[in-house]
Amino acid sequence: MDLKPNAEATRERILNAAMAEFAAFGVAGARVDRIAKAAGCNKNLIYIYFENKETLFTTVLRKHLARVYDEVPFTPDDLPGYAARIFDFVMAHPDLMRLMAWFGLEQGAIASPEERGEALDVKVAALAEAQAKGAVGGTFPPSFLLVAIMALATAWTAANPFGPSLDPEARGDPAALRRHIAAAVRLLVQSGAGEG
Amino acid sequence: MDLKPNAEATRERILNAAMAEFAAFGVAGARVDRIAKAAGCNKNLIYIYFENKETLFTTVLRKHLARVYDEVPFTPDDLPGYAARIFDFVMAHPDLMRLMAWFGLEQGAIASPEERGEALDVKVAALAEAQAKGAVGGTFPPSFLLVAIMALATAWTAANPFGPSLDPEARGDPAALRRHIAAAVRLLVQSGAGEG
Repeated sequence: MDLKPNAEATRERILNAAMAEFAAFGVAGARVDRIAKAAGCNKNLIYIYFENKETLFTTVLRKHLARVYDEVPFTPDDLPGYAARIFDFVMAHPDLMRLMAWFGLEQGAIASPEERGEALDVKVAALAEAQAKGAVGGTFPPSFLLVAIMALATAWTAANPFGPSLDPEARGDPAALRRHIAAAVRLLVQSGAGEG
Repeated sequence: MDLKPNAEATRERILNAAMAEFAAFGVAGARVDRIAKAAGCNKNLIYIYFENKETLFTTVLRKHLARVYDEVPFTPDDLPGYAARIFDFVMAHPDLMRLMAWFGLEQGAIASPEERGEALDVKVAALAEAQAKGAVGGTFPPSFLLVAIMALATAWTAANPFGPSLDPEARGDPAALRRHIAAAVRLLVQSGAGEG
């Protein structure tokens, strides 16, 4: 009865240390002994809990993706608002966007978490339904709209190669940036609405 | 008279080998001895020509950015066409987008090339002029439009954390993807036009 809460706490400490390590160095650059030191545990324990560095990365990514899904619910009837909330979330969590960028670069080493595909299917279906009832315009396929929303909402995060270097001043006025992103998404989702 | 063309050819071989190494491993992960081996030259020569790994990365990045500036001229009067041409270029040059992604992640280690700032200033000025004469709508600031265009045009490249994993099938039909990206950019740049 005594061991379980301790084990859970150790697991959490490892995941937090791993998040910082992976965000800074990616999968190839991360060192399990640094994670163990930061988590205050034995290196072997990490291998016992998480098998290897790649599985540990996927576990960290899944944990943080689950948080996004949880804290930023998908609202197919209000996509400009969804984009604005994604923008707020990713600007407040730069480590997550660094994790996503490493994931993009190191995709050979890391499998895409299954639930990401499932979350996507749910969103695409909801968008297709919103298009069918005319709430979302039909100019663009649902999956195009999803990628466009994510690309626009995350373009000004710190690790992005465009926003911070091409438009550094905008980051100083997040309210205006949020408004512009929402307006851009509104144009995309309204295009073709009421034409069917 | 004999040495110069040889030196130039060696320098080119180093830059090509460095491009492959940096695209695969980034700055921290790249190894100068692997670059020297691939270029068939002495490791010391790389330090003589390029000082250090960071300068070599910046030199490679500048060379390839210059190629984009050269091959994809900025057309403020045809921004949907510009987005479509950027899309074609980045899809055909996945290594450049990997380089950009590493640049985003390792910005602390690498300075943004000066001419990138200059190229940006020229584009922002041209866009502001196009807005003043009504050819481009005034809903969004010029720098927002530039970042949005780059974010949309590059979202389906291989290293991007969204396009390839959220919308894998679209990559199989680049003509449709190009059309959708151009249509999305058209909506953004036409918004607010003729209202002043």
